[in-house]
Amino acid sequence: MKRPLLTLLIAASCAQAPLLLASAPASAQAVRPVDDASPVLVSAEAWRDMAEAGDRYPMFSEERARIQAEVDAAMRAGVDVPVPRDLGGGATHEQHKRNYKALAGAGALYRITGERRYADFARDMLLEYAELYPTLGAHPAGRSSVKGRLFWQALNDSVWLVYASQGYDAIRDTLSAEDRRTIDENVFRRMARFLSEENAPYFDRIHNHATWATAGVGMTGYVLRDPELVDRALRGTAHDGKAGFMRQIDELFSPDGYYAEGPYYQRYALAPFVIFARAIQQNEPERGIFAYRDGVLIKAVEGVVQASYEGLIVPVNDALPEKGIDSEEIVTGVAIAYAQTNDPRLLSVAQRQGRTLLSPDGLAIARGLVEGQVQPFDFRSMQLRDGPSGDSGNLVLLRQGGETGQLLVMKNTQQGQGHGHFDRLNWLFYDNGNAVITDYGAARFLNVEAKNGGGYLDENDSWAQQTVAHNTLVVNGQSQFGGDWRVGEEHTTTPLLFQVADGLQIASARIDTAYAGVSMVRILALIEHPDLAYPIAIDLMRADGSAPALYDLPLRFNGQIITQGFEARHALTERPVLGDRAGYQHLWVDAQSDPGVETRSLTWLLDGRFYTYRFGASAPTRALLVESGANDPNFNLRREQMLIRRMDGQADASFYAVLEPHGAYDSRAETVTGSTSRIRDITRVRGDDAEVVIVTLASGKTLALGVADDVSPGRSHTVRADGQTWQWTGGYARFDRDGDGK
Amino acid sequence: MKRPLLTLLIAASCAQAPLLLASAPASAQAVRPVDDASPVLVSAEAWRDMAEAGDRYPMFSEERARIQAEVDAAMRAGVDVPVPRDLGGGATHEQHKRNYKALAGAGALYRITGERRYADFARDMLLEYAELYPTLGAHPAGRSSVKGRLFWQALNDSVWLVYASQGYDAIRDTLSAEDRRTIDENVFRRMARFLSEENAPYFDRIHNHATWATAGVGMTGYVLRDPELVDRALRGTAHDGKAGFMRQIDELFSPDGYYAEGPYYQRYALAPFVIFARAIQQNEPERGIFAYRDGVLIKAVEGVVQASYEGLIVPVNDALPEKGIDSEEIVTGVAIAYAQTNDPRLLSVAQRQGRTLLSPDGLAIARGLVEGQVQPFDFRSMQLRDGPSGDSGNLVLLRQGGETGQLLVMKNTQQGQGHGHFDRLNWLFYDNGNAVITDYGAARFLNVEAKNGGGYLDENDSWAQQTVAHNTLVVNGQSQFGGDWRVGEEHTTTPLLFQVADGLQIASARIDTAYAGVSMVRILALIEHPDLAYPIAIDLMRADGSAPALYDLPLRFNGQIITQGFEARHALTERPVLGDRAGYQHLWVDAQSDPGVETRSLTWLLDGRFYTYRFGASAPTRALLVESGANDPNFNLRREQMLIRRMDGQADASFYAVLEPHGAYDSRAETVTGSTSRIRDITRVRGDDAEVVIVTLASGKTLALGVADDVSPGRSHTVRADGQTWQWTGGYARFDRDGDGK
Repeated sequence: MKRPLLTLLIAASCAQAPLLLASAPASAQAVRPVDDASPVLVSAEAWRDMAEAGDRYPMFSEERARIQAEVDAAMRAGVDVPVPRDLGGGATHEQHKRNYKALAGAGALYRITGERRYADFARDMLLEYAELYPTLGAHPAGRSSVKGRLFWQALNDSVWLVYASQGYDAIRDTLSAEDRRTIDENVFRRMARFLSEENAPYFDRIHNHATWATAGVGMTGYVLRDPELVDRALRGTAHDGKAGFMRQIDELFSPDGYYAEGPYYQRYALAPFVIFARAIQQNEPERGIFAYRDGVLIKAVEGVVQASYEGLIVPVNDALPEKGIDSEEIVTGVAIAYAQTNDPRLLSVAQRQGRTLLSPDGLAIARGLVEGQVQPFDFRSMQLRDGPSGDSGNLVLLRQGGETGQLLVMKNTQQGQGHGHFDRLNWLFYDNGNAVITDYGAARFLNVEAKNGGGYLDENDSWAQQTVAHNTLVVNGQSQFGGDWRVGEEHTTTPLLFQVADGLQIASARIDTAYAGVSMVRILALIEHPDLAYPIAIDLMRADGSAPALYDLPLRFNGQIITQGFEARHALTERPVLGDRAGYQHLWVDAQSDPGVETRSLTWLLDGRFYTYRFGASAPTRALLVESGANDPNFNLRREQMLIRRMDGQADASFYAVLEPHGAYDSRAETVTGSTSRIRDITRVRGDDAEVVIVTLASGKTLALGVADDVSPGRSHTVRADGQTWQWTGGYARFDRDGDGK
Repeated sequence: MKRPLLTLLIAASCAQAPLLLASAPASAQAVRPVDDASPVLVSAEAWRDMAEAGDRYPMFSEERARIQAEVDAAMRAGVDVPVPRDLGGGATHEQHKRNYKALAGAGALYRITGERRYADFARDMLLEYAELYPTLGAHPAGRSSVKGRLFWQALNDSVWLVYASQGYDAIRDTLSAEDRRTIDENVFRRMARFLSEENAPYFDRIHNHATWATAGVGMTGYVLRDPELVDRALRGTAHDGKAGFMRQIDELFSPDGYYAEGPYYQRYALAPFVIFARAIQQNEPERGIFAYRDGVLIKAVEGVVQASYEGLIVPVNDALPEKGIDSEEIVTGVAIAYAQTNDPRLLSVAQRQGRTLLSPDGLAIARGLVEGQVQPFDFRSMQLRDGPSGDSGNLVLLRQGGETGQLLVMKNTQQGQGHGHFDRLNWLFYDNGNAVITDYGAARFLNVEAKNGGGYLDENDSWAQQTVAHNTLVVNGQSQFGGDWRVGEEHTTTPLLFQVADGLQIASARIDTAYAGVSMVRILALIEHPDLAYPIAIDLMRADGSAPALYDLPLRFNGQIITQGFEARHALTERPVLGDRAGYQHLWVDAQSDPGVETRSLTWLLDGRFYTYRFGASAPTRALLVESGANDPNFNLRREQMLIRRMDGQADASFYAVLEPHGAYDSRAETVTGSTSRIRDITRVRGDDAEVVIVTLASGKTLALGVADDVSPGRSHTVRADGQTWQWTGGYARFDRDGDGK
């Protein structure tokens, strides 16, 4: 765009009107003179520190060099502020993304290097935006419920504002009064108005999109010395605290820092929370924002790292499985959290990320590393309670053997709004650096324009969110809550057991509302035994129904099938589809057994380790081997296999299983060891008020897990069968016996 | 086994009879007294060097520690020499494998540490073998054409002998005369006899199994001071040079060091060649074995490294795609080659391998690294000519951008005996660290007992070797040579072009015998263009047939389909199988287009890079999208997708295509660039004696490749079409024009 002479006079008074609101605390920003244009998001000393850092802190200087290369390239290419046209991944979309990064980068580089050309470049670009932005209506390709102006969804406009406001803050005192007014009004104030007043219901939601909006608007408020904007960001458009950033912190995070939409969106949401919190801390330290709710924002940073395996975030709910803790948002979160806490464990996360920010926080990280402060991050077993009060379920992480050992995840969280999956009581298993029992994640190719503009695909609804796409019980071929997330929002899962002890870790939970008339309880345990090289996972899923039903229990296993330990009819020359709705329409059937009561097994090989899954049930079941990919004309799905255990015509059902990692396949040395399971059988005994799962090892020894229906601590339970007795007090007990029940 | 008192007197005279054969050269070993039992495979000085190395050379001391841990564990477990019972991967199989490694390790450790317990352990184990071995007949689970005694196939017995003879050599002078005689006769001489005299046709084959046998027998000959055994190994059971090790070197390697069965078996075969050659060099340096045939054994080591990408061996013919240059055989080959040549490029290969041998050669490697001799290995474009005289085709490797850049492989080699695939004129493409256009390799799970005892699966014949499993032309739904490898052995491929120049690399070849009445020529080129970020691959496959035929040209592409650039009917709810023989029975059909003459395209995404394949043909073709996995009741196949271009009813066919890597998908930064192809179209013009493939870029510029039917250098060619003229002299030419043919 060409830049004509700006002749309009802009009335800015109304937006600046309430200089001091009754409820806003008297604070630094409130008394800062409006004609002072020096930086407010980073202190003058901090900019000086960064300027003087030189090359003493490699991670910082590498980031500086990276940003410099990026900004220099953008400057060589020249200012390019195109009229918005494209969806995610398209040329104008990517250009506006590059622009906000270039703005933030140029601002920082101007402060750090003192080179005026960076400030001028940012100014020239912002003046182009000042010309373009007022001409824009809704984005032409907008399909989101709230369209943006620069981007197809308002979310990206908010992100633009969060980054551009930082760049603008850094160069604002270099501008002529006229340029400053032009940019203030035509870019920042207009954009803030669009994202808040003009879209108040959107801005006032308790949702991560609104967090980006509040962050952008609030930071704009600091930069423009506009306390009304800041207060609007903090307390909502009505300035009553029923919406806005503080309310989002209250509602979106549990006391453990768990974010209602799950770890993947926690990563995404984290950035505006910590970036805006940092701006608040800088301008209004008296708010103690990082100590707010017992330091919940810092807990949120740690929590998302805990909910990762081998650097990848556990992909429950809508999530791209390839997204890792090295993502920009977590780099941001770790740096800002470290600068606030000096927690040396965060340095090892930064080390793994391999980069940090061009900011005071990044400098702190780089310094901490040079000074040898680093300590290992302690990946450990924990539960992340969900819900604002921590009473809306939990995400359970059972670990053994540290970062690359075993991780058993149990998902007992809330629905997680529109990005939630219908997967209560789902479980995942990681071992040997790999996802072994997996989550499909989301059906989406982020920013790949040819794939629905980079947005969520239809298959996200028709497949990825459906219950059958997860390792949890499907009743009568329907998804939980009838596949309606708003219904799901109304019901929580109830955690029962969570115990971490040497050699045995256990978690359990119940939900009675996922399916009408069906109460479901699942018990998952990670257990060590001297006979076994690795811990095993025991899984007991019980359903108590009011009427006979069709129960399907899928298992998404990852690896090449080595032994199918049961008879089945195979679809060899024509592959049928399993169903016609609720995700079943996407499953090809490869094999199906007759109903049977015998214990069955399936062994697969993944990355040099064998896994044997041994399973039985309380009534005859079929075993089906299926694969995703049916009804997929656009090749939008990954093709991944599953085992489905199917029991038909029972009201009550008990599915029990053990997953055993074993052996080694070394393709380099061409050796194979332990390819045979060390477990002989798994059985289950039902008592009056408890259930016992008995694993018989190859040696004849048995390992039994007793679990009471009522898990309260003081009660005693006795189960007798086949001349054996299991007796214990409390929710569960482990029994180790030699052969023959001795 | 328990070891009873040995009371039998063993008549050893017959085996030792011809002490000096007329044809054996007078050499060191020939005059060594038979009662000297000191080591002959490694010199006393070399053992001393290793003993004195201490910890000065980390790679050597790490290997010493690794072997020590392994042998110490074996010693703690105690001698275990079980009666053979199992197939590959089974307990007795793996135990006998562990034993030969422990023998070699214990021998070396005895010499290096001076600790007698190592020698005693090796002795005790060998005495057990001396007791067991004479009692053995054919292996009970043997299914190979030549069964072993310790293992299911004689091959593994030979490998046992190669390693055990090294361990025995190191400790033989610690034995009592009686123990020595017992082991000499009941283990080594018996085993050598079994592998040679008693299986003479096997021993005298020109085949890698026989190489292991000759190496084992020959090394046994040196250790037992038995020149007849040595000569038998070198010149065959008839001692006439028509068989044996020297003949194997002559016949199995081309002058460029290419091994007839392909790189995967070259890796495997390498070990006995270089290990035995080293023993020959040690005992009969006057043979100049490493200089033999212009240093062909050293060339073979380099060749297998050249035929790798990102550390993995190009998996043409029967091959496990996960097998890398860090395999034990190549560690052995690189160490021995380095010790002979001091070629510093080999040190960087060793560095990548991350380990070396506990041998004088390994010490040389470790020393070279400590002394900073290392130089990068120069991965470069080359042809490896096939056949003893180098006139039986070639394996073409066209590279751009070094080790992780582009690699285009063209397979114009011989059949490669029973492990050869029916894939003449096949091509593969690597880019960005990944296999993009792939080879299935072999259908086998090496040493996984549950998968056909770890041997080749039935699907290796029914799928992996068939032509349709490769990126080359299938005629009338049959594999090349009617799927009979013995027929394939009789016919070679004729290389036509091989030129490597800046910006354009080209190879072509012809075969007239793969299908009766059909002459096939393929031209492949790797071309750079200033408009394009990466080199593109141009592919022109021509068939001149004597009768109308059904032509299928498969493309095994690796990645997620992003855009299917053509209309097709999709198999959405029932997936049919493509055919009933020659590999087609294993292909599920996902989509099929109508016949059309328009240019089509397919775009996929792999590891953050997009690939657009744009293709046309001289007559209407269908495009099919298929996936392997049909008729696979045991889940023995990997499920991998392919595009098949199908032309029916033509005698002559020309298939042309361009593969374009482009753009970047960065999931960490959530950015996408260049997801749209920079190529607009591909067309083809046929002249009287030449063909021109024209690629039109998005800019309107064109890039054309003219290829003459007769590639001889001096001839001129002219092709005219649509008002344009392409004129050149020689086999091929490149034409760069601005838009509109200017």
